[in-house]
Amino acid sequence: MKVKKESGKSVRIIPLGGLEQIGMNITAFETESAIIVVDCGLSFPDDEMLGIDLVIPDVTYLKDNRDKLKGFVITHGHEDHIGALPYVLKEVNAPIYATALTMGIIDNKLREHNLINKVRRKVVSYGQSINLGNFRIEFVRTNHSIADATALSITTPAGVIFHTGDFKVDYTPVFGDMIDLQRIAEIGKKGVLALLCDSTNVMKPGFTMSERTVGRTFDNIFDDCRDSRIIVATFASNVDRVQQIINSAKKYRRKVVIEGRSMVNIISTAIELGYLDVPDNIIIDIENMKNYTDDQIVIITTGSQGEAMAALSRMAGSIHKKLYIKPGDTVIFSSTPIPGNEKSVAKVINELFQLGANVIVQDTHVSGHACQEEIKLIYALTKPKYAIPVHGEYRHLKTHAQIARDMGVAKENVFVLESGNVLELSEESGKIVDTVVSKGVLVDGLGVGDVGNIVLRDRQLLSENGLIIIVVTLEKGSNQVLCGPDIVSRGFVYVRESENLMDEAREVVEIAIDRCLRKNVTDWGKIKVEIRDTLGDFIRKKTKRNPMILPIIMEC
Amino acid sequence: MKVKKESGKSVRIIPLGGLEQIGMNITAFETESAIIVVDCGLSFPDDEMLGIDLVIPDVTYLKDNRDKLKGFVITHGHEDHIGALPYVLKEVNAPIYATALTMGIIDNKLREHNLINKVRRKVVSYGQSINLGNFRIEFVRTNHSIADATALSITTPAGVIFHTGDFKVDYTPVFGDMIDLQRIAEIGKKGVLALLCDSTNVMKPGFTMSERTVGRTFDNIFDDCRDSRIIVATFASNVDRVQQIINSAKKYRRKVVIEGRSMVNIISTAIELGYLDVPDNIIIDIENMKNYTDDQIVIITTGSQGEAMAALSRMAGSIHKKLYIKPGDTVIFSSTPIPGNEKSVAKVINELFQLGANVIVQDTHVSGHACQEEIKLIYALTKPKYAIPVHGEYRHLKTHAQIARDMGVAKENVFVLESGNVLELSEESGKIVDTVVSKGVLVDGLGVGDVGNIVLRDRQLLSENGLIIIVVTLEKGSNQVLCGPDIVSRGFVYVRESENLMDEAREVVEIAIDRCLRKNVTDWGKIKVEIRDTLGDFIRKKTKRNPMILPIIMEC
Repeated sequence: MKVKKESGKSVRIIPLGGLEQIGMNITAFETESAIIVVDCGLSFPDDEMLGIDLVIPDVTYLKDNRDKLKGFVITHGHEDHIGALPYVLKEVNAPIYATALTMGIIDNKLREHNLINKVRRKVVSYGQSINLGNFRIEFVRTNHSIADATALSITTPAGVIFHTGDFKVDYTPVFGDMIDLQRIAEIGKKGVLALLCDSTNVMKPGFTMSERTVGRTFDNIFDDCRDSRIIVATFASNVDRVQQIINSAKKYRRKVVIEGRSMVNIISTAIELGYLDVPDNIIIDIENMKNYTDDQIVIITTGSQGEAMAALSRMAGSIHKKLYIKPGDTVIFSSTPIPGNEKSVAKVINELFQLGANVIVQDTHVSGHACQEEIKLIYALTKPKYAIPVHGEYRHLKTHAQIARDMGVAKENVFVLESGNVLELSEESGKIVDTVVSKGVLVDGLGVGDVGNIVLRDRQLLSENGLIIIVVTLEKGSNQVLCGPDIVSRGFVYVRESENLMDEAREVVEIAIDRCLRKNVTDWGKIKVEIRDTLGDFIRKKTKRNPMILPIIMEC
Repeated sequence: MKVKKESGKSVRIIPLGGLEQIGMNITAFETESAIIVVDCGLSFPDDEMLGIDLVIPDVTYLKDNRDKLKGFVITHGHEDHIGALPYVLKEVNAPIYATALTMGIIDNKLREHNLINKVRRKVVSYGQSINLGNFRIEFVRTNHSIADATALSITTPAGVIFHTGDFKVDYTPVFGDMIDLQRIAEIGKKGVLALLCDSTNVMKPGFTMSERTVGRTFDNIFDDCRDSRIIVATFASNVDRVQQIINSAKKYRRKVVIEGRSMVNIISTAIELGYLDVPDNIIIDIENMKNYTDDQIVIITTGSQGEAMAALSRMAGSIHKKLYIKPGDTVIFSSTPIPGNEKSVAKVINELFQLGANVIVQDTHVSGHACQEEIKLIYALTKPKYAIPVHGEYRHLKTHAQIARDMGVAKENVFVLESGNVLELSEESGKIVDTVVSKGVLVDGLGVGDVGNIVLRDRQLLSENGLIIIVVTLEKGSNQVLCGPDIVSRGFVYVRESENLMDEAREVVEIAIDRCLRKNVTDWGKIKVEIRDTLGDFIRKKTKRNPMILPIIMEC
């Protein structure tokens, strides 16, 4: 089937990522008869979302239009692009389309959630096109910090939309070929209606370095540290990085230990699918390390972001069951802290230094995202009529918008969308015509969406000043105090050192209850308010703190 | 009085900052007959210290030796060097010695705490020496991100100890003269026993740029943004930075508004003491802004670290009472995020962009700390026998230790101290001879030290999963259930949507209590454990969460 461009036709673009689109990528493309969704990512909670494990998108809009939904098209295998699939597929099932490694990683996820036999999946190669309703989608090779990343050229009745996915321009990639600039130019030459382009590094001038440059640094470090054990922490999904560490290991005759659950998972998948070139017998089991000397070992591990439970953090905290940091170990952070993780990473580095390790943090990482000149190159090749910056915080999108204008896109044709905006594009015009439900859904343990703002506000309050509970039992009918008030506190003060304060607090509450009962107040709500206000004032005056105050009245 | 170097004599150096010395600077120097303390800083809580306002040092050692304590000698007016003074002085009162601006800032603090008439204070000039017991301390001019910073040349019976304080080498400072390298060389030539040197930027190669370079950038921005209102956020204490903004304002004929409490306080003190050169009538009151057009105004404000309640954050959140961000405003962050503040700063920047402001974050800040080449210069000038890296996290101190060795200090003469270590130095030998009490004391509201690990652990638990309270009233003697169990939760789930879960939970608790009573368990502790375990298992199975479970038994 050939999708024909028809004049007067339009297409709608609807980002559904919620939360100002920070980190969570999911975008619907809609025509009269069909919807496709590009990516389906999750996001990690920010500091204010206490106790939350994950945030996933609200897909009410897809549920309301499930008859039109033709499939999920995935650009690459990072969590912020695939992580919500198991949750979303339980709400709206539709086929998944992705390249081989991306699909391998998705399969692992579906297996964990017992969904592997319930979802249709199709592996697509670069250059191949798929037809979904009246969309035709071509997969176009790009480079990124995970192998098999793809851009999408989406032909719609209104014209061609080019979506870069997350990308960089790597002229000398470690695995496979460079981004298919020729094909992108060809698509551009035929006419691109709209460009959705990665904004992550848009604040950075210049060009992102090639992944291959990191390999040279590894060689230098392996050469400098011939006598010591080497431990490299990096992102589990950065298969090319792992390849380069293995290359250096081979060159310097070291065996490789893979450590950390997600590292083991992804590396196994990558080896199985042929994305890693691993010499025979170079990878050894952690149990067999004892058969080798320190200078014969390199350990590749998770934990480069200082995540509390990751393998490297456990080594640094001396609670790893099988690996102990020794004086003289060389630990390489082949990563850069994701904003917000700086302090956790610093903590792990300090701990490693304290155990006597030599820690290397410089020159062993390059970004997987395009800087300004690469972004401009994509504009130069595609020359889109409309520009929609994607994948970044608001400041990135706004900065990207200026670059789009600098590259010749008319001011009124650049759209910085908020999540839920429905952008309608045609050859004639582009405008936001509607806004649909789009927010973050909080996942806490098994609960999806049962923790909302009230619960989070309570957790915040509890975390800052703890709580004081007052229990009193009243006699049914007479409303006389049968027992109590008893006072219990948690997270407020260390009670043994503050007995006087708690004794005084109990007296304050007794007086408050007496006052109510003498006035014949029988509405328990009112008695609780009286207790809360009186005790709150007392505590504030005495301590300048605002613990949560929770009166409980029982009736016997 | 001349302090004579006597052979066989020793001096002790005791860092008392607690918490691995992160951020909190206070170091005791002790001879047989005297103690002096250099700096007396506070630290801000890390992410795990929920609800804590400040951390101050434990000065038990000073209290135990108060007869020997001769005074506090302060190197400069930053919070991590002076902030704990009001708290510590209440425990051990001793005179304060500092340069004029530093003392001005300390005086503000003492006034707030009603201590101004209770503490002796002496302003010391560069080049001047003071005698405290058998110490002689000379103040030596340095450069830093606050004016009037000083290094200390401390003559002791065991030899001269040179303490850099926080410093950089600025050949072209904005105010006053450059660091007194000649005097430092002269002191070095005569012989330095030990060097305590700033480690903050020790990971950075090269030289820190001069503060003056920022002034040129301001001029360029003021020139580029002639039509828009300009708002500059920076550190309140960076008087030289404020001077340069005022210089650009004068050049481009703008009036200056000072906003934010700490900014107003420090600027007033700096003007009063002659550390700022302010043209007549250039500073206007915020109320008079309405008499000027946008291109005639520059606002200097606090909030460059994204602090929630600072003036800039309130503008960005549209909750500032007098200042509203308008499309076209230019907002300059003349700062760099302190590690841990990256996300708060990004949040404020995003909000400013959303309000239509143009945000500039590049090239308008330089550090106040020495990089590697400057640190080496100090070693080259002082040639110390012993090196004690100070002011940095463990990784900084360890990296600094290597530089000290590279600069010729014998390996065994470089000491990376932990807080509380007592380092004894003499011409003959240096070793850690003891460890004294030294920890962080947590300040929460009016409470100093009443929040400890148990309370913090409870707050952590509460913040992650909330709590469930079970109240039951038992009859005295018979132990029959009179009323309850009632269940109340906070920060756990939104109860209205989870009524079934809470109903089931109540049943689980009823069964557990029944089981106890039928077995004639009368020990309430045991009944509580039974309730906690049974309900905990049930909740974990149903939700994969671990709320705090708090059984309360009342007796009627």
